[in-house]
Amino acid sequence: MKALRRVVILLVFAMAGRVTAIAQDPLSSWNDGPAKKAILDFVKATTDKASLKFVPPEARIATFDQDGTLWVSHPVYSQLMYCFDRVPALVKAKPELASVEPYKTVMSGDREAMAKLTMPDLEKIAVATLTGMSTDDFQTDVRKWIAEARDGRWKKHYTELTYQPMQEVLKYLRASGYKTYIVTGGGQDFVRVYSEQTYGIPPEQVVGTALGTKYGYDKNGKPYLTKEPKLLLNDNDAGKPEGIHLMIGRRPYAAFGNSTGDQQMLEYTGAGDGARLMMLVLHDDAKREYAYGPATGLPDTKVGTFTQALYDEAKKKGWTVISMKNDWKKIFAFEQ
Amino acid sequence: MKALRRVVILLVFAMAGRVTAIAQDPLSSWNDGPAKKAILDFVKATTDKASLKFVPPEARIATFDQDGTLWVSHPVYSQLMYCFDRVPALVKAKPELASVEPYKTVMSGDREAMAKLTMPDLEKIAVATLTGMSTDDFQTDVRKWIAEARDGRWKKHYTELTYQPMQEVLKYLRASGYKTYIVTGGGQDFVRVYSEQTYGIPPEQVVGTALGTKYGYDKNGKPYLTKEPKLLLNDNDAGKPEGIHLMIGRRPYAAFGNSTGDQQMLEYTGAGDGARLMMLVLHDDAKREYAYGPATGLPDTKVGTFTQALYDEAKKKGWTVISMKNDWKKIFAFEQ
Repeated sequence: MKALRRVVILLVFAMAGRVTAIAQDPLSSWNDGPAKKAILDFVKATTDKASLKFVPPEARIATFDQDGTLWVSHPVYSQLMYCFDRVPALVKAKPELASVEPYKTVMSGDREAMAKLTMPDLEKIAVATLTGMSTDDFQTDVRKWIAEARDGRWKKHYTELTYQPMQEVLKYLRASGYKTYIVTGGGQDFVRVYSEQTYGIPPEQVVGTALGTKYGYDKNGKPYLTKEPKLLLNDNDAGKPEGIHLMIGRRPYAAFGNSTGDQQMLEYTGAGDGARLMMLVLHDDAKREYAYGPATGLPDTKVGTFTQALYDEAKKKGWTVISMKNDWKKIFAFEQ
Repeated sequence: MKALRRVVILLVFAMAGRVTAIAQDPLSSWNDGPAKKAILDFVKATTDKASLKFVPPEARIATFDQDGTLWVSHPVYSQLMYCFDRVPALVKAKPELASVEPYKTVMSGDREAMAKLTMPDLEKIAVATLTGMSTDDFQTDVRKWIAEARDGRWKKHYTELTYQPMQEVLKYLRASGYKTYIVTGGGQDFVRVYSEQTYGIPPEQVVGTALGTKYGYDKNGKPYLTKEPKLLLNDNDAGKPEGIHLMIGRRPYAAFGNSTGDQQMLEYTGAGDGARLMMLVLHDDAKREYAYGPATGLPDTKVGTFTQALYDEAKKKGWTVISMKNDWKKIFAFEQ
């Protein structure tokens, strides 16, 4: 009886703690405005049992693009930096590549020349650095890189360059019974390595561009999977709803993106009935992060394009555009 | 204070209920023996914090083949019955098929002739009945079929032909913090329709043979996905570990199967360190279900083959063979 009493007391304390946590603003890095309101209204409508738009907990799925939506994607995608950083090891293993393009340019370290590499060049580098090894070796290597590499502007680990307001949305949705998924054009195997620690999203909730693997045995008969240069899912554009169907099998209730590559995911989400939340992050804060996206007169970009057509569709369909400059009090957790 | 007191009282009752539930045998349809012991020992070793083989909750993944492991797969796979049952509607829509094989044989209703259809015939029927429609229409149709169709022997709905002892394993593992997955050679889209209701496994935890989809718009501009005859994952044999990597991204700690198609999944599971549980269901009970599997002198079969090679590997690697006849007190929930 005494033990039971102690349990009860502990429970009461735990509950009291929970009440306090809920009472705090779950989106404290957001300024009051239509974007913050859209999120709060959506959660209220879908989680209040008295609401006509109530969604049962098992159907609460929210999908997030990663690059440019959850973390910085300029000047280039972090995964591309990983691929570049792996080239020296590749050339060491195959010295004949040192004098062959595009490896020669990467080895030169000439950032301007590297920025001019063509899409076929980048694909060649990606295939050479992301396939041919076992899935275990790949994970070990990415884990090491993620722990060490730093970006060129803030000199931070890439995983520190996630957007604090979006981290709050992830946590708030999870606290409201939503399963949060990353649906990224980036490599599924790559993002899965750090998703749990960085976003609280387990590997099985990361959908990304996926290559095939091949099952085989080492000399001791131990089985392993080799990463193959065979594209199973190009998780961009129409590939996003296709990937969501393949990997999740349910239509999301909320979807977040930042570029034309996310348009179909937001359309697919919005085509469901009941309350749906579609949001696009607009990079309009050159001072604190970057500013790009021709739709709003900002400079054009090849990485994370926010076109006029996307902007028009957002307006037409009632999607909410998040202004980093106006909607976010703070962009990074490390900011003062 | 009064309200709080009531909450506390409710909590105490809830906890007491939980204790009672745990005190009951979680595997009450299992006879005492090595199979039941293997499951209990595994759960104890991986969930007891004091155990050297403790597995953190987020890594607790268990995978289950479906046909012949969770439900009856003889004389033919249930999904094949679905495909056969769809042929009349197909012929109605395309009358020219009535005089063309293999549709002619299926329309004849001659069970013996249907049993002799070749693999290419069956593939033709599968492609014709499982692709070309929207994913939404497919789900609606499967849901209707599952609610109505009955098997030939017990005259039960197929979803009633799940094995009670395996349902107990699913529940017991989940109560022990495991995420349970189906990893089936059957169609992913098919199994996802009834997995939640039948096994308590949500659609996103079903990995199966998967075809591609194509994103498009109807005449009102509403987006939808069409099921395409493009194989993305053949989730049999080596395709099982490959599918697990693609869809889950973690190695399971426990894997259950019943045939050569599950061998690689069990190998892959067993190749991880710490405690791992690998089990194979042997169909040796002709009276209560079916008996087949040449390894133990039982009749040969094309559906769910348990070869001598599989039996030898099981013995060599310490996998546990479950005898339906000896290990299971009860096979179906509807048994007296």
